[in-house]
Order: sequence, then structure tokens, then C-alpha cells
Amino acid sequence: MKALVFHGPQQIALEDRPIPQLLAPTDAIVRVRKTTICGTDLHILKGDVPTVEPGRILGHEGVGEVVQTGDAVTAFKPGDHVLISCISSCGKCDACRRGMYSHCAAGGWILGNRIDGTQAEYVRTPHADTSLYHAPVNVDEDALVMLSDILPTGFECGVLNGKVQPGSSVAIVGAGPIGLAALLTAQFFTPAQVIVIDPDVTRLEVAARLGATTVVSPAKEDAVEAIRRLTGGQGVDTAIEAVGVPATFELCESIVAAGGVIANVGVHGRKVDLHLESLWDRNISITTRLVDTAATPMLLKTVASGRLAPGVLITHHFPLAHILDAYRTFGDASSTHALKVIISP
Amino acid sequence: MKALVFHGPQQIALEDRPIPQLLAPTDAIVRVRKTTICGTDLHILKGDVPTVEPGRILGHEGVGEVVQTGDAVTAFKPGDHVLISCISSCGKCDACRRGMYSHCAAGGWILGNRIDGTQAEYVRTPHADTSLYHAPVNVDEDALVMLSDILPTGFECGVLNGKVQPGSSVAIVGAGPIGLAALLTAQFFTPAQVIVIDPDVTRLEVAARLGATTVVSPAKEDAVEAIRRLTGGQGVDTAIEAVGVPATFELCESIVAAGGVIANVGVHGRKVDLHLESLWDRNISITTRLVDTAATPMLLKTVASGRLAPGVLITHHFPLAHILDAYRTFGDASSTHALKVIISP
Repeated sequence: MKALVFHGPQQIALEDRPIPQLLAPTDAIVRVRKTTICGTDLHILKGDVPTVEPGRILGHEGVGEVVQTGDAVTAFKPGDHVLISCISSCGKCDACRRGMYSHCAAGGWILGNRIDGTQAEYVRTPHADTSLYHAPVNVDEDALVMLSDILPTGFECGVLNGKVQPGSSVAIVGAGPIGLAALLTAQFFTPAQVIVIDPDVTRLEVAARLGATTVVSPAKEDAVEAIRRLTGGQGVDTAIEAVGVPATFELCESIVAAGGVIANVGVHGRKVDLHLESLWDRNISITTRLVDTAATPMLLKTVASGRLAPGVLITHHFPLAHILDAYRTFGDASSTHALKVIISP
Repeated sequence: MKALVFHGPQQIALEDRPIPQLLAPTDAIVRVRKTTICGTDLHILKGDVPTVEPGRILGHEGVGEVVQTGDAVTAFKPGDHVLISCISSCGKCDACRRGMYSHCAAGGWILGNRIDGTQAEYVRTPHADTSLYHAPVNVDEDALVMLSDILPTGFECGVLNGKVQPGSSVAIVGAGPIGLAALLTAQFFTPAQVIVIDPDVTRLEVAARLGATTVVSPAKEDAVEAIRRLTGGQGVDTAIEAVGVPATFELCESIVAAGGVIANVGVHGRKVDLHLESLWDRNISITTRLVDTAATPMLLKTVASGRLAPGVLITHHFPLAHILDAYRTFGDASSTHALKVIISP
């Protein structure tokens, strides 16, 4: 089969690899019909994720068709159309028992990281019963790919952790796919304001179209001042950090209201300054989270019912044969205006 | 009357001042029977709290007897014995309506800060109906003073924010009065482990006597290693920071388990390093809080019922005439072994 293989920083290639085999009775083999590229894959390309060894097939998102199942798999059979979760979970360990699947002792984020992933014609999915979901029949497969990672990530790490509530004020810092996923799902809870902050004008236009009540470009105005003006001087109840650099996190520290939450979603490579000298008495919370995908069943219902249309985040399509073009397009989003790219094996 | 007056950094004096008068119909005048000194008062002496102007009578804790009430006060009358809360709250503003009394638009921590405080023979208490509490008849007055600030602070900012739960593991960093208040009230929720970390051997002895399951001195062993050993390599579910310097906060970052909480209680004068590069995917929360005293009615019940005996935190007694000695004793706790000092006008 064809697969996108990582060979070290900035070295990826589309290669022939053997079709994966069942290794455990809880495994399934899935023929990949659609996959995509995540910002985390770009981090891997930079060499930021040391757990990814040369030779690894990348990718942790996708939809496909089950072609083979291990003896212990009971919820899926060959022919089933499935959503592949970015998080594999055994369902049995202490972390899984408390719903923190991201820290599963025998799983977590392993696809396209510690084991071969979905940017290929076939993928082996461990713990299939608790890591795959039946695809709703009426949902477009491209849109469904958004539920492997970015929708649950934006929702769980941003919206749920950020305690978005009816009437509350929300700022989303960063209007990439994850920030926009937070924007879409924040609206489940009918906040009074959802302010999106990003220097990219095109992304702000998308944000405005997808429900932002106000958009702010730090290239044009002081973002802290803008938030103060928009919130009567109080700051926002929820600040969602969807970039992953010190400047955007520290912006969140400056705009969160007393009693508010900073919900970190970004993948950070460096420490940040936490200004406890001004925050110690502000009754705030800061949260971090690797997505648990505990919300995936709920998100599938919202999509199947038509209340959420995540296909709006898709801007480009490529066949697997052109996946290197897809990486270039996704990696150069400031000029290509790419959000999510769909790759079809 | 006699009162302890702040005149600038390191300048305090016991002076004659006029007895305070009612300024608003919601005020009460209370004759102070017992008061104490808080770590925050030492911060004021260092010049760390710019809202405290020269001429201010210090002190935000105390018990006393109501001697006069404004026309709008309905819950108290002259002769009532009362606990004075460190937080004054109007009960009407947006912050008060959501129980965040610490950020009351017309109150908050104002006693001994923006208005004259309790280290005097009399004090004016604004918003009396929502800032005073009837003293339980069977509770020792000295012990009751612990409910003005440190018990609710340790409980709300440490234990409640830290989500201490049955069977959970807790580390308290700092065994001063606030850390010990967190230790006492953490036991309401029957955690499996309460580990107290402090370099002071005497304070660790007190902690062990008051219910710590293990005490750790960073002067004798690596605290991070000790916590790893005590928690099977996982870290603690709750890390309570009760000191207020970067080193102790950063220790909490190193010992918190995946899915855990760092509950900051310490008053910080400087920024800290937040290691998001290792914490972004750990599903942790960090909380800050100025005590709301929302738990004070509950704490009064636990003390009145004998389930909590906060008098164990009192080590020294002084008459108001010797309050400068009390400040010296409290300020030099490492040699005097002072925890809370009671001052009687």
C-alpha cells in the first residue's frame, strides 16, 4: 500500500509499505477512505515530537471501512464504516475509568506517533471497540474527518474546559482550524459574545462567517484595549488559547476577567511567563488538556442532526498520491488560506 | 482609642485615634475583643500593597461586640457578638450575586487596606448584614478569629479549588498558618494522602500532629522524588501552593499528576515560569483565588459542632498595648515558631 512515512525532521516521503496485520485480538484493520493533516503533524516535521521515530507512518485522523477485526472485537465487523479517533483507549485502566482517555495507560495519542497512522491506504487501530465509532449514514465523509481530532479538541479543551455558558463572553485567540472548531462548538452554549483574535484577515473573515460576534486583528489594533472596550472593562469570562506560543498565552492572561478561565488548547514548545503577581487574587483558572474524545459520541449526534456542519472547515482536497502537495499547502496556510485539507487514498 | 497605624514601609506605631463613626446606613461599629496579624500584614509592612496608604489602621481579622448599627442594618444589633470577615460584601453587585464576594464592586478586601481595620479597639464594618456573622455561643473567641481569614482561605482557595476528594492525594507546599488551615480542612473530604512539604522541622511536627499522612523537608530530601515515590510515580491529584514564591509554585508544577489541580493560595509578588511545554497535554488546572468567605457559614457550623478546632493554630497571645511585640514575634516565625498570634484590645 501507499503511505506517508516520516524519516526525520523535514523528511517525509510517499512510499510502498506492507498492509498492516492484526497484532492483538482487540485490533481492527481499517481501509482509509479519507484522512487529513493536523498542525501536530507539522510539529512532528519540525522534530518537535521526539516520540515519533523515523519510519513511522504519520496521521491520526480519518474515516474508513473495517476490513478485518481481532477475535475480541465485538462492536465492529468487516464492512462497517467508521470514524477513527485520534485517541486510542483501552477502556479499562484508571485513566479510562475516569474518562481521561488521553492518558490511557495502553493508548492515548499513539496513532501516527508511537505506532503507524492513518495517512495510508490501511491502518491498524488498537482497542477498536473503544477507539472507533460507527459513521452516521447521512454525514458526508469529508466532514466526518473533522470529528477525529479538531472538533473534540476545540470543544473539550477549549469550550468545556473554558466553561462557556449562556450569556458569557468568550475570546478565541487564534483562528486556525482548532480555534474555528472552538468557535463552532462554543455556540452550543449560546454565549453573548465570541470575539476571535487573529492577525490573518482571511481567517477573521471565516470566523465572522462562522459566528464570531466581533473579530479583532492585533495587526490593526491593541487586542487588550479592544477586549476591554468590548467587555465594559471587565475582560472575558473565557479566553481560549488556540495557537501555542508565549505571546498568545500571555495575551490571554491580560484579557481574562476576574472569575474567568484561560483554556489552553495550543501545543506549546516553550515555557511562558505566568503573571501571578497580578493574577493571584483574580479567582481565575487555567486549564490544559490533551483531547479525551469523551465528547465524540455527542458531537456525532450534533453533526448527524444537522446542528453542526464541520465541513465548512475544509478548504482543499488531494488524492493520497499528491499528499506532499497537501503538506505544502497546509504548511503554508498564510498564502494558501488552507484550513483543513482532505486526502483521499 | 488605641490603634496600630501604618505610616509607610517598615513604619507602624500604636497610636491614639478617634473611635470610628457610622458613615453609611449599612455600617456597624464593632468593639474589637480579639484580632490577629496576617501574613498579608507583613507584605503591607514591606510596601508590597500600594493600596494601603499611610495613616491606615491595619488588620482584617477579628471578633467583637456590636456597639452601634446604621439604620439599614437588620441582622445585627448592639450587644451582638460577631465574627468580622476579612471580606466586606454588598451582596447586591454582579460579583456578589455569583458568590464571588472577594470581587464585590463596593467591598472585597478593604478592611485594613482601603479603609481602617481591626487592629484597634473599635472598627467600622461596612455592609454589616453581609460581612459579619453571629458568633456561636459555645466557641472560644480566640479560635473564632481563625474564621475571619485563614480557615476560609485555606479551605476555599486550597481545598475547594484543589478539588480534594475521598481517596485522592494532596500535597500542601508550605506549613505556615494558611497551609495548616488547608491541612485541617482538607480532611473534611477524607483524602487518602495529605503530604506536607516545608523546610521547617517544627512546622512539619505540627503538620504531622494535625493530620498530615507524610511530611517532607526539602532541606533533607528531593521533594519531587519524594512525591514520586509516595504516589507510585503519578504525582498528586491536588498540589496546594501556600507560600507565594516562584520556587514553591514551580515545585507544584513538578508534582501534579495528570488530571490534577494546582491550587494557588500564596500571595505572589513576582511572575513565575509556567512550563506549558510539559504541561499542555497533562489535563491539569491551575487556580487562583482571593477568598470569597462563601464557606464561612459552613465553617462556623463545623467549629460549633466540634468537628474542627482551629485554636490549635494559635501559639502566642498579646495585649493590644504590646502589638509591636506581636508583629516582631509573628514576623520572625522561624525562630519564635509563631503560627497565629492573638491580640486582645
